[in-house]
Amino acid sequence: MSSFGTLFKVTTYGESHCKSVGCIVDGCPPGLKLTEDDIQPQLTRRRPGQSKLSTPRNEADAVEIQSGTENGVTLGSPIGMIVRNKDHRPGDYSETDLYPRPSHADYTYIQKYGLKSGSGGGRSSARETIGRVAAGAIAEKILQQVNNVEIVAFVSSIGEVSMNRNAQDPTFQNILNTITREQVDGVGPVRCPDDGVRDEMVKVIEKYRDAKDSIGGVVTCVIRNCPIGLGEPCFDKLEAKLAHAMLSLPATKGFEIGSGFLGTQIPGSKHNDPFIHDEKNNRLRTKTNNSGGIQGGISNGENIYFSVAFKSAATISQEQETATYDGKHGVLAARGRHDPSVTPRAVPIVEAMAALVLVDEFMIQQARSATAGLLTK
Amino acid sequence: MSSFGTLFKVTTYGESHCKSVGCIVDGCPPGLKLTEDDIQPQLTRRRPGQSKLSTPRNEADAVEIQSGTENGVTLGSPIGMIVRNKDHRPGDYSETDLYPRPSHADYTYIQKYGLKSGSGGGRSSARETIGRVAAGAIAEKILQQVNNVEIVAFVSSIGEVSMNRNAQDPTFQNILNTITREQVDGVGPVRCPDDGVRDEMVKVIEKYRDAKDSIGGVVTCVIRNCPIGLGEPCFDKLEAKLAHAMLSLPATKGFEIGSGFLGTQIPGSKHNDPFIHDEKNNRLRTKTNNSGGIQGGISNGENIYFSVAFKSAATISQEQETATYDGKHGVLAARGRHDPSVTPRAVPIVEAMAALVLVDEFMIQQARSATAGLLTK
Amino acid sequence: MSSFGTLFKVTTYGESHCKSVGCIVDGCPPGLKLTEDDIQPQLTRRRPGQSKLSTPRNEADAVEIQSGTENGVTLGSPIGMIVRNKDHRPGDYSETDLYPRPSHADYTYIQKYGLKSGSGGGRSSARETIGRVAAGAIAEKILQQVNNVEIVAFVSSIGEVSMNRNAQDPTFQNILNTITREQVDGVGPVRCPDDGVRDEMVKVIEKYRDAKDSIGGVVTCVIRNCPIGLGEPCFDKLEAKLAHAMLSLPATKGFEIGSGFLGTQIPGSKHNDPFIHDEKNNRLRTKTNNSGGIQGGISNGENIYFSVAFKSAATISQEQETATYDGKHGVLAARGRHDPSVTPRAVPIVEAMAALVLVDEFMIQQARSATAGLLTK
Amino acid sequence: MSSFGTLFKVTTYGESHCKSVGCIVDGCPPGLKLTEDDIQPQLTRRRPGQSKLSTPRNEADAVEIQSGTENGVTLGSPIGMIVRNKDHRPGDYSETDLYPRPSHADYTYIQKYGLKSGSGGGRSSARETIGRVAAGAIAEKILQQVNNVEIVAFVSSIGEVSMNRNAQDPTFQNILNTITREQVDGVGPVRCPDDGVRDEMVKVIEKYRDAKDSIGGVVTCVIRNCPIGLGEPCFDKLEAKLAHAMLSLPATKGFEIGSGFLGTQIPGSKHNDPFIHDEKNNRLRTKTNNSGGIQGGISNGENIYFSVAFKSAATISQEQETATYDGKHGVLAARGRHDPSVTPRAVPIVEAMAALVLVDEFMIQQARSATAGLLTK
Repeated sequence: MSSFGTLFKVTTYGESHCKSVGCIVDGCPPGLKLTEDDIQPQLTRRRPGQSKLSTPRNEADAVEIQSGTENGVTLGSPIGMIVRNKDHRPGDYSETDLYPRPSHADYTYIQKYGLKSGSGGGRSSARETIGRVAAGAIAEKILQQVNNVEIVAFVSSIGEVSMNRNAQDPTFQNILNTITREQVDGVGPVRCPDDGVRDEMVKVIEKYRDAKDSIGGVVTCVIRNCPIGLGEPCFDKLEAKLAHAMLSLPATKGFEIGSGFLGTQIPGSKHNDPFIHDEKNNRLRTKTNNSGGIQGGISNGENIYFSVAFKSAATISQEQETATYDGKHGVLAARGRHDPSVTPRAVPIVEAMAALVLVDEFMIQQARSATAGLLTK
Repeated sequence: MSSFGTLFKVTTYGESHCKSVGCIVDGCPPGLKLTEDDIQPQLTRRRPGQSKLSTPRNEADAVEIQSGTENGVTLGSPIGMIVRNKDHRPGDYSETDLYPRPSHADYTYIQKYGLKSGSGGGRSSARETIGRVAAGAIAEKILQQVNNVEIVAFVSSIGEVSMNRNAQDPTFQNILNTITREQVDGVGPVRCPDDGVRDEMVKVIEKYRDAKDSIGGVVTCVIRNCPIGLGEPCFDKLEAKLAHAMLSLPATKGFEIGSGFLGTQIPGSKHNDPFIHDEKNNRLRTKTNNSGGIQGGISNGENIYFSVAFKSAATISQEQETATYDGKHGVLAARGRHDPSVTPRAVPIVEAMAALVLVDEFMIQQARSATAGLLTK
Repeated sequence: MSSFGTLFKVTTYGESHCKSVGCIVDGCPPGLKLTEDDIQPQLTRRRPGQSKLSTPRNEADAVEIQSGTENGVTLGSPIGMIVRNKDHRPGDYSETDLYPRPSHADYTYIQKYGLKSGSGGGRSSARETIGRVAAGAIAEKILQQVNNVEIVAFVSSIGEVSMNRNAQDPTFQNILNTITREQVDGVGPVRCPDDGVRDEMVKVIEKYRDAKDSIGGVVTCVIRNCPIGLGEPCFDKLEAKLAHAMLSLPATKGFEIGSGFLGTQIPGSKHNDPFIHDEKNNRLRTKTNNSGGIQGGISNGENIYFSVAFKSAATISQEQETATYDGKHGVLAARGRHDPSVTPRAVPIVEAMAALVLVDEFMIQQARSATAGLLTK
Repeated sequence: MSSFGTLFKVTTYGESHCKSVGCIVDGCPPGLKLTEDDIQPQLTRRRPGQSKLSTPRNEADAVEIQSGTENGVTLGSPIGMIVRNKDHRPGDYSETDLYPRPSHADYTYIQKYGLKSGSGGGRSSARETIGRVAAGAIAEKILQQVNNVEIVAFVSSIGEVSMNRNAQDPTFQNILNTITREQVDGVGPVRCPDDGVRDEMVKVIEKYRDAKDSIGGVVTCVIRNCPIGLGEPCFDKLEAKLAHAMLSLPATKGFEIGSGFLGTQIPGSKHNDPFIHDEKNNRLRTKTNNSGGIQGGISNGENIYFSVAFKSAATISQEQETATYDGKHGVLAARGRHDPSVTPRAVPIVEAMAALVLVDEFMIQQARSATAGLLTK
């Protein structure tokens, strides 16, 4: 379905070429200062057409709050938000009347729904993520206020060019400790904070752009100052919710938390994060953080960090041998220009989904702990 | 929370040392032939103590159906199932009164709930998965009957020893096409079907066992004959539900679908799965399957395959420098013997969670397509 | 929260004086012919200002579909709908800066949310029901197509003037069998089909209007051709879902299904509905229908009928002795003109909520029965 | 489905003649002192066979907690509870092999599920309510501790014999203010606290018992000390959740909150509850309580009171003319002895469902208010 969350719930609507896209954010606490200015920056960060590396479609994506605030403060009622679709160019996609685009959603949609959306991509379009980003911006503002939570995502690999993401690497952990959005955006459209690999990433993207091809990448995200105790022991482990959120993004192929797949190769004696006493806060902390800030499904107060794999974009301008809907062999060439690498644009979307997961779990935990606190001792 | 699923919903209860563990399966269609004999085999497959590679605790784990069937047929009402806990040995864990075990759930639980479960591990124990496996066995039987769905998981890596999991590798794809549970179990407790690496895996496990250490691994799972059209376009993409399900398992650190993280390095022109006409079934198929059987969040009829990373078990017998609950530095040594590699035991649990995801999505899609089929044309 | 339904889910937003009100309908099956023309009629029926009996505020309430359809057919994706708010007159309510209006939501909102909406009524406004009616119109169109379902509500009492609603009364049962929306609307704004009491009802409303007072009433609703088998045995009995839906409407005080409260006085021997064979459809039917079309929480194919009590409107123009927010005794007189009886306007809203309950239960049952039908016999 | 609640969620299983009935209570806050002794009393109160007025089946109904507590304190993990079925007498119901019992669930179940449960009544049996009562007892203990909430239900009418339930009647309001469970149980099995009508009620029940017939009644319930601010503005108004809960009980035909159906006859000027200043608590209260403690869907701190109509029991010992499953006219006489009035036994069940609604809404509101309290002012 098109809803996400239990107590802080976002429901989105809209496909690529309808009147508007948007969402309803239900369950936002009252009393939060909120205007379009809190939301627009992340929408702008996800916009295509911001550099020569990305697609030149120019989408203004101006959000309009419909309800749920008054005098710039949330009322506690649902927040309706819409972003009008302006740049309709269904003509660009007309060859898809004959061909299901390989590795796109055309074929599965028609099989699932029994009909074909004439417009490009329909609900599977990346425009659907606008509602998520708008909602995520609200979630993030709450998290900042309640615990100074910081969420920063960045590109950690493009194609075969990758930062060192080994959980036991001090440089990597240092980046997780300090990286800011300003730094991520400041280094140019590739959004990779690692000086050692960034230029090479740009070259890779340019190579595939020139070849009318595309290339995938990995976005890594860190959450700092996450309150301790978020997540549930069983089906709703915090990493399970994060994995769900991330794999619900278009073009994702993988998720790893903390040490991830590489962590399976580290023996327990080295992978375990020993406890140490944190003088400053007078509580336990872990000396290392292979766990990625979550143990037993529950946040432990350390940095939460995870990575999300984005495949190479399915829409490419070069010719592809494939078959038409009625089974005839043929050659499809998508018209128009297309993003050679969507990975950098995914950065604010990953942040948004992380914020949506966290704020919901935060509110659920508040319910439990506040009630427990009122019980007779 | 402790529920999973929308129309086919399982709710589990139980921790490691309470009277029983179990679950309620709600929404099972009526008319399914079902007795304990359909459920017990998978429970037995997940049992520890089956070989010298695994922990010697002997748990009988006999399931008792409480309700929801009559004369061996499901009624459509909730199916209550319990498995009694027999092997209580809380004494084994007594040092955990002083120490939160590193990378275990002890610390986060006490932070979340404000109290400490005296028994070992509490809700985060692997015994919690018994309810999942019991429910999954029912889900699987339904899937077999409605579309001959086959779900087979196996160990694809232990530590640094790994099968080739490259989506573009013909040998790997061939294993996905043909592997059976009998083959997986037939090769011994390590449950890896690849003759080339299995012996080495056993040696790795034995090495870490002898070192009182542990080592992680990867479980890969293939779903054959999945009906086309399962999964939702937005938040509930099929891979998102699978990722949620898998990361909700204890000790998991990562998930990848189809080409996974490696797929980010393959350019779109090679990663895209071209369509070809399938004469036999008179429908489109894809020539390759980098997508892993899901496109746009929806199953396309090809094999669904994914991998799940399991970290090295946190409980090891060797001494670990860490801190007590009250912040004093010390050395913890878990008593008893512990599984050096939990990965092989995870095989039936991964299968169970996959079945729970699929049957729920199948029923949701039935609702939609059956209703759509009744609309005026 | 602001969502209703499981597989056919509506989420609404909007309060009385924000930019727009609206909803997202998620889960609508694909292939339904749908334009604004299918939705507008019920929105128009709920509009105030249609007669001298009701409030003169003129709200155009034109619905605009944002997404989810293409060429007048639903895509299966979420249907976003908005209705702009045009008639902002917050000045009318300015005295509510000082006074919480008696039996309105002002006091409880400020207690719940910790802040006061400056506009009149906020989320508790009747304008919130616009989203429900828009969604209900879609639900109703589906129900008509899948089983020729007919849903007709009407006013059955105003103040002390009441139709005979005794389940055992043949005249009442005859009305339930035959009443149409055209008849309900054709008899004038009071929307009561009973010639014997209608004129008296009008007089009652006029009396209270002239006295700057208000009066309540009852809306009865019949659902004909409901498919057999909808509803669940336990918490989600069909009457429970209907009761939930109806009591979620503003100003409701009661719900009864079938024989209702009066039915508690009829002994089992007379209240039980004996079975008879229905030659025409070659199935069992009940001879009487005290059950109101639902038995054991599940529809039995007979007419479902229920009644909903609407209290006298809280907003009246006459002076009321009450207290200010800060506890001072005073006299409040609402400015403007107010509806002396909101009951007739509730008719399309009751129909909408009934349709939303039914379509969701219909889809859930399709999931179950379609899946059960595929099991091995 | 068989689950109820969002944050405090109960899932039940079991039908009348399976091995056990029970439930899982998920989301119970940790740190609550809880043993079987807290739960058993309400189970005992709902047991049949307690007087000559009710059915002589003797069910011990001893609850066994399976999980979720340790040393008599809740852990925060799911609480599994089972009650073994002991008194299997399916033979009593054997004639139902031929006949669907009139106004029972036999016919609708077979239509819905496509098969017939051989045992008496199946999931629609009153035994299903055992899980609800067990869960409700836990909910109630929490509510008592967090705000001294008191929930007391009692019989307010049997057949035509009724207490005065007019919201404006001082005697009725006085009963609501003061009635205790001890008083309700102390007056004998009819559980009506009104001395003026109780004896007559007993006579009515005896009359129908002797006639092998049954008679319905009304249960009224009051909730005192409900925290202010529970319930949601839109679909989840507190009265909507209560109505849902109550109409989900077997044999219910109606629900009314506060002034109820009678309230529709009271003009707004008299029905509105004026505000007055409450010196003691330094807050507003209402002078009257026609609203029944809920305004705009949200509790206002006054007594919440509502009534639930229970129809005459469908199972009667006298002969009934009806039809067999295959459509032949015939005469059915239920064997065994049957309760002439189930209404008094419903008292603890109504209390349980009220507690389940309240504790869930309480926890949801805690989430919101605790989070809002942390926002930057």
